[in-house]
Amino acid sequence: MDYQLHHRILVWMEQAAETLKYSLERELQVEEKKSPSDLVTEMDKATEQFFINKIREYYPTHQIIGEEGQGDIVDDTKGTVWVIDPIDGTLNFVKAKNHFGIMIGIFEDGLPVAGYIYDVMNSDLYYGIVGVDVYLNNHPLEPLKISQLNESLVLGNVESFSNNVYNMKALLNVSLGARSYGSAAIEIIGLIRGEAALYFSAGLRPWDFAAGYAICESMGYKVTTIDGSRPDILTRSPILFAHPNVHQEALELLSHK
Amino acid sequence: MDYQLHHRILVWMEQAAETLKYSLERELQVEEKKSPSDLVTEMDKATEQFFINKIREYYPTHQIIGEEGQGDIVDDTKGTVWVIDPIDGTLNFVKAKNHFGIMIGIFEDGLPVAGYIYDVMNSDLYYGIVGVDVYLNNHPLEPLKISQLNESLVLGNVESFSNNVYNMKALLNVSLGARSYGSAAIEIIGLIRGEAALYFSAGLRPWDFAAGYAICESMGYKVTTIDGSRPDILTRSPILFAHPNVHQEALELLSHK
Repeated sequence: MDYQLHHRILVWMEQAAETLKYSLERELQVEEKKSPSDLVTEMDKATEQFFINKIREYYPTHQIIGEEGQGDIVDDTKGTVWVIDPIDGTLNFVKAKNHFGIMIGIFEDGLPVAGYIYDVMNSDLYYGIVGVDVYLNNHPLEPLKISQLNESLVLGNVESFSNNVYNMKALLNVSLGARSYGSAAIEIIGLIRGEAALYFSAGLRPWDFAAGYAICESMGYKVTTIDGSRPDILTRSPILFAHPNVHQEALELLSHK
Repeated sequence: MDYQLHHRILVWMEQAAETLKYSLERELQVEEKKSPSDLVTEMDKATEQFFINKIREYYPTHQIIGEEGQGDIVDDTKGTVWVIDPIDGTLNFVKAKNHFGIMIGIFEDGLPVAGYIYDVMNSDLYYGIVGVDVYLNNHPLEPLKISQLNESLVLGNVESFSNNVYNMKALLNVSLGARSYGSAAIEIIGLIRGEAALYFSAGLRPWDFAAGYAICESMGYKVTTIDGSRPDILTRSPILFAHPNVHQEALELLSHK
């Protein structure tokens, strides 16, 4: 890990989070993307542009994948790739003014190096450095105590459970119950805090899973697609983030219709 | 409102919340009640007893309904009745160490007078005094901006949505989506913070809804059973807590199978 790059990310995320927090005090410019629940605001675009400008200034050779499409068109994962979600949970940002996050994943030749998730309204910055550790506001997080799926909570989307996408109701039946915060960032935070044994989503885009993939990898969690393979940071996929004790069982439940 | 009583509740809740927070640093004694997801700990019982001892000392004529059954057997609602949930979201308390609350409702002749919800891990004390206002840590909460159900989020239990209890999937289809925190206390907080337009639960016991009923009443929200009538604080019922602009529409969706 390049610790100067790490340091810069922390500084930039603090700045971006502060700007987002202040923006909630005024009227946001909200546009619909594909549906009334798929929103984008001027703050999504401005936050992404802020990171892109910083990266271009200090790391002009790095590639950037951003949710709002202001980065590069990336078709190979060689070298250093940044994957940025400027506001994960824009619907929560607009409607709830809570439970949204900034996410950044750093990849080297397609493999995770470090991940960062900022829970803006709680002023909590989680990050993981692969091969080192996972931290909350620079404090190492406690080791995990998940033992079995039937003694644990799970995290996922209400609509996906309800529609039994990928047989997700099986997770409800086996576990102690599900929680749903409406943001991959906040759900991955729930997972790494040990609130639940797994987080599954039926269709995550690279910016939705990149940071969580790197943080979970740093923590010893398993992160795979539905067929058990490593996620590809260029592809939308169903992704299972799970404690190693429950990953295989969950994968089998999700694969068997 | 008796403001000396109000003051005492604030003081007692702070004490109880501090004790609960410290208890998470040691091993809890967890017992199952009716199922593996229906838990009780020594802290549920001790917290309820703490409030009962205080109430008996200062208000010996008041009646007390408590989740853990250490209060009175109450069969009429005459006079002052306290309804206490010492830990709402015990499963979250045990497994997630987050997203649980202490709830107290004060009723006079069956009608709500004041309600209190303590979000312990966020150190946030919400309360409403009927006819006065709703407060977060003594700051009045902002007026509500919910307009329509199709522009809003909703709150409820994942399993209930998934099993379409009371036609709850209709709420998913009409709204922008659902969030689920696994605790009535935390979901009612979401509602009064304006994160969502409504919270519906298919079966709430008096201690699950009493505090929220009083707080929502203070705020101008509507709180009814599925047939539109006022909740009875002696009975388990399906309860809809909703912004007045969406209450009728939601009630119709929930009633029509």
